[in-house]
Amino acid sequence: MRRLKSIAVVGAGLIGGSFALAARRAGFAASIVGYDRDPAVLQRAAELGVIDRAAESVTEATRGSELVMVAVPVRAIGRVLHDVGLALDPEAIVTDAGSTKAEVVRTAREELRERFPRFVPGHPIAGRETSGVEAANVELFRGARVVLTPESDTAPQAVSIVRSAWEAAGARVSTAGAEEHDRIFAAVSHLPHLLSFALVNEIASRSNAAELLEFAAGGFRDFTRIAASSPEMWRDIVLQNREALLAELDRYGARLAVFRELIEKGEGPGLERLMAEARATRLNLGGGRRGQGQE
Amino acid sequence: MRRLKSIAVVGAGLIGGSFALAARRAGFAASIVGYDRDPAVLQRAAELGVIDRAAESVTEATRGSELVMVAVPVRAIGRVLHDVGLALDPEAIVTDAGSTKAEVVRTAREELRERFPRFVPGHPIAGRETSGVEAANVELFRGARVVLTPESDTAPQAVSIVRSAWEAAGARVSTAGAEEHDRIFAAVSHLPHLLSFALVNEIASRSNAAELLEFAAGGFRDFTRIAASSPEMWRDIVLQNREALLAELDRYGARLAVFRELIEKGEGPGLERLMAEARATRLNLGGGRRGQGQE
Repeated sequence: MRRLKSIAVVGAGLIGGSFALAARRAGFAASIVGYDRDPAVLQRAAELGVIDRAAESVTEATRGSELVMVAVPVRAIGRVLHDVGLALDPEAIVTDAGSTKAEVVRTAREELRERFPRFVPGHPIAGRETSGVEAANVELFRGARVVLTPESDTAPQAVSIVRSAWEAAGARVSTAGAEEHDRIFAAVSHLPHLLSFALVNEIASRSNAAELLEFAAGGFRDFTRIAASSPEMWRDIVLQNREALLAELDRYGARLAVFRELIEKGEGPGLERLMAEARATRLNLGGGRRGQGQE
Repeated sequence: MRRLKSIAVVGAGLIGGSFALAARRAGFAASIVGYDRDPAVLQRAAELGVIDRAAESVTEATRGSELVMVAVPVRAIGRVLHDVGLALDPEAIVTDAGSTKAEVVRTAREELRERFPRFVPGHPIAGRETSGVEAANVELFRGARVVLTPESDTAPQAVSIVRSAWEAAGARVSTAGAEEHDRIFAAVSHLPHLLSFALVNEIASRSNAAELLEFAAGGFRDFTRIAASSPEMWRDIVLQNREALLAELDRYGARLAVFRELIEKGEGPGLERLMAEARATRLNLGGGRRGQGQE
């Protein structure tokens, strides 16, 4: 592993901050410069020792850095990359931590132009029980998966360095095409969030919502926990990944229609078979069996 | 609180067993007789001291008991009530612990006939992280809600005794009409289970299911935890509560169509507003904020 002289972290929140902490502990970079559009966050990152130096702009953070990590909400990545492109050293590398990839890649190609081969699109799949730089944690990525989605013209050496950085943080790195990445996450992340938001929103819209929710038990709480996620963030994710998400939504609608028909016709064996398939798959996945029985 | 001479528990699983333990500790009954169609379960219930005496049939358990608790899967309640009706003392009371109520009430009316006013339909909403008599726990109903759904011809004194039994176990008792109960639970329990089963079943049906699930994070695990629930039990619940559940499913489908249209048209502010409504409602509910951010 080559030690870098300096890396920049743009967006000093949970992800950017944890990346900085892990890079420092692994000895991956000699110095870490940070930037955040919120001055209070940036100051706190410096106070906490998450970054060594606070920059006053994206361009200032970028200049002289060998690796720039862009850890901002997906919709803001384009604006940041625009500024990064203005100041990026010819041999330096840029990566991001956005939850969607195809739209980020399109934007990066426009904003970075001839620097685009130095951009390595990435997505760390890390638990987000909290947010903000206060929650930054050197162990956040230990055992977590990170998906990189290099394009055919991405520089292999750039991919290799970003991979090393994540591996130094303890993550397991894999690669996929950006479109494939987005289809996968539409299925296992974006759709469930949408379904959960829709259920709670539907119940919230009723005049007897408070009464209904008095009877909500553990199963409901588990199912709807993700409906407490950030609306701004999820608005952007579902819009950025619109195409794949709509395709998933339609597949899901078709499957739900099968369940509906079985219920309407009172076809117990068919219902039980589909539920048993689901149960077997879910048990294989692990991660808790709360809500086993009836409520 | 009047102390009963004997109560019978038909179905010596988690619910029946925990009810027996709580009734004994509260001094609610001098003696508890149990019956289970599985002889091994019944023997274990006696060995564990959950019941004082094992009966060889429903009628034997019923005879001489002042209160009969029927804690069997909803579809089996009718058969049990038939036998209970053959042996029930004129002044004795029957109650159940089924998750659906309107269909149970209809069946009870048919099976119990002139004894029907002695039947108090009930639904304890207790966490079911485990099942079986081994998991029976004297504290299971502490703080839990129990909904009783008496009919206009249910004897008030019978309702009062069943209420006392649950309160002695530490539960908070409320009453509702059976149809109202079923509409409430279709919304906050049966529909979420159905949606979760359908999502996992849809993913399980794909050739790349294993690959997709490798990328499933905490949000997916929370959302799908209830898809590991018992297929037999949930097949019965959704069929028993078919009408209310289909109505809920259609309401949900309409709401999901609103989300779909906003996504298709790229209407960020509208999406964010609906998600924010959901988030506020879910945060009010409490019970964990895992999955706050993006994944």
